[in-house]
Amino acid sequence: LGRNKRVKIAFIGSNGHINYALKGFEALPELEASGVAPGSPGAGEKPDKVMQALSRLGQSPGLWEDPVAMLEQTKPDVAVIAGYMGDNAALAIQAMQRGVHVFIEKPAATTEEELEQMREVYSRSGVQLAAMLGLRYDRAFYAVYLAVRAGAVGTVRTVHAQKSYKLGRRSAPYLERGTYGGTIPWVGSHAIDWIHWISGERFKTVYALHSALYNRSHGELELSSAAMFTMTGEVAATANIDFLRPDQAATHGDDRIRVAGTSGVLEVRAGKAVLLNEGGETELELQSPGHIFVDFIRQIQGTGACLVSADDSFYTTEAVLLARRSADDNTLVPFPSHKI
Amino acid sequence: LGRNKRVKIAFIGSNGHINYALKGFEALPELEASGVAPGSPGAGEKPDKVMQALSRLGQSPGLWEDPVAMLEQTKPDVAVIAGYMGDNAALAIQAMQRGVHVFIEKPAATTEEELEQMREVYSRSGVQLAAMLGLRYDRAFYAVYLAVRAGAVGTVRTVHAQKSYKLGRRSAPYLERGTYGGTIPWVGSHAIDWIHWISGERFKTVYALHSALYNRSHGELELSSAAMFTMTGEVAATANIDFLRPDQAATHGDDRIRVAGTSGVLEVRAGKAVLLNEGGETELELQSPGHIFVDFIRQIQGTGACLVSADDSFYTTEAVLLARRSADDNTLVPFPSHKI
Repeated sequence: LGRNKRVKIAFIGSNGHINYALKGFEALPELEASGVAPGSPGAGEKPDKVMQALSRLGQSPGLWEDPVAMLEQTKPDVAVIAGYMGDNAALAIQAMQRGVHVFIEKPAATTEEELEQMREVYSRSGVQLAAMLGLRYDRAFYAVYLAVRAGAVGTVRTVHAQKSYKLGRRSAPYLERGTYGGTIPWVGSHAIDWIHWISGERFKTVYALHSALYNRSHGELELSSAAMFTMTGEVAATANIDFLRPDQAATHGDDRIRVAGTSGVLEVRAGKAVLLNEGGETELELQSPGHIFVDFIRQIQGTGACLVSADDSFYTTEAVLLARRSADDNTLVPFPSHKI
Repeated sequence: LGRNKRVKIAFIGSNGHINYALKGFEALPELEASGVAPGSPGAGEKPDKVMQALSRLGQSPGLWEDPVAMLEQTKPDVAVIAGYMGDNAALAIQAMQRGVHVFIEKPAATTEEELEQMREVYSRSGVQLAAMLGLRYDRAFYAVYLAVRAGAVGTVRTVHAQKSYKLGRRSAPYLERGTYGGTIPWVGSHAIDWIHWISGERFKTVYALHSALYNRSHGELELSSAAMFTMTGEVAATANIDFLRPDQAATHGDDRIRVAGTSGVLEVRAGKAVLLNEGGETELELQSPGHIFVDFIRQIQGTGACLVSADDSFYTTEAVLLARRSADDNTLVPFPSHKI
């Protein structure tokens, strides 16, 4: 796809971070919304929200009932996939099998079997894929990523990440494992993605716990969880993943990371990135790395690269699903791919 | 021991937190230093530091070469034990077998076998014992303990604790497992003690990693480590334990805890205790709980209680030793006593 050629975008589902894609329309005049369909029509999911947003952007896509029929008949370049979490992997597979590039809500899959199938279809498809791990584009976390790469903390030895959300009142798809996928995959994707992205290490084992106790009648939704990973280079990583942020807190999420290395410690907290090393304590200057969907389109056009590669999208998904299995079974789970 | 009766204190070893006991002499006129001996005479440890400090306090204890001979012949009421870490359990056993109360550096033992033996001797001895887990007496951590007990965060769901020290230049006893015991036991005792003390839950399993890589020629000393515990009540706890604090940092240690519950989050950081709950964000008023050694003497006298019980001293020791075993063997380790 050359840069001056129109890029046809199909929207499947209206959940999660579809705003990432909608924002892209403001920056890229070549984008054209070619169709909208629900991602989880069987569960009564309605794509009204996307239709309205696209209309405000001057787009007039057709509204479909069946996402696969839409892919078949409108032949889009890119599918933005954000149905209920449990449906997204199958939709992505349908898209990739038709040569359609995929921009998909995280986690990319909610079962290990579907992830395996996705990887296989992807490897034969020649398409591009990115999961909506948009917090790599957060200015503070990106600053930490760059600083670690530049050697600000020396060699990374331990990482601790935190994702803490307000519970509020979650709708039905969050209350069942089948549609939701679980708190470690859904909330934890970002935290676990930061860990390997920022450290540059690979996961070797994971041990995790999650609990649905005290979840205020949210069915199977796990209110609290934590995980520990051993990594290459004898790096230890821990993550706290929960819905325990009080509703009265100033912001929805309390995202943190601490990266401790042989010559310094870098932290993100309250949107600030702070480095402590031989030069004392310094607040890092934040710089925007750009925009995830714009980068993804540029990557398809051959003129750029998304910070979230397909391999990383699958790898983070693998990590959250193995962590979930560890928590489900209360066992230590090794990573089969850790020698990659 | 009545309150007006003299209390004879023998010092064995001059390492670790003997200052706790020395401070007690300022508060309790009934204390008398009855003898001083090295805790690790075979390793050339010298108790000069304690002798000098006691002299400044107006005490003139005899100096012994053999700690057991000193116990036999001076018949002290209390032994303050702080030789090299690997020697302390055997010394405590010698003291307890002679009916001498024990105030001992943490960890109370550096092998699981010695811990078992200590527990057995203790249970038959009728003496009192406390490990020097003096950070229960830290004003910020004590404030968090009280606030959790008072229901400030509702039911605890996850805990994350951090102990991060400067490495500096450690002397020979820190460089070998046999004398040092390991970083998880030595540095981690406090963090792991806070976890069960503050949460009120019991440990069920532990998984941990430690690494001696990049330790700047410190032999077997583990520079970095992390552990994850599952606990009763489906509570998850993680701990970061390391010597990664830059030498230029303002304070030696960076002690933290985050306790997240069903209705609030409590944290200690930089010496402050902060509560976030339905009332917004509040800094807790810090109140001193008293002094660990004074409380221990009062407990012996029957007029008070130390915040660190013998059971807790042993339990925290068990937890750090099981965590160390998990890290040594890269396996998940269950707690045999978790049904207590």
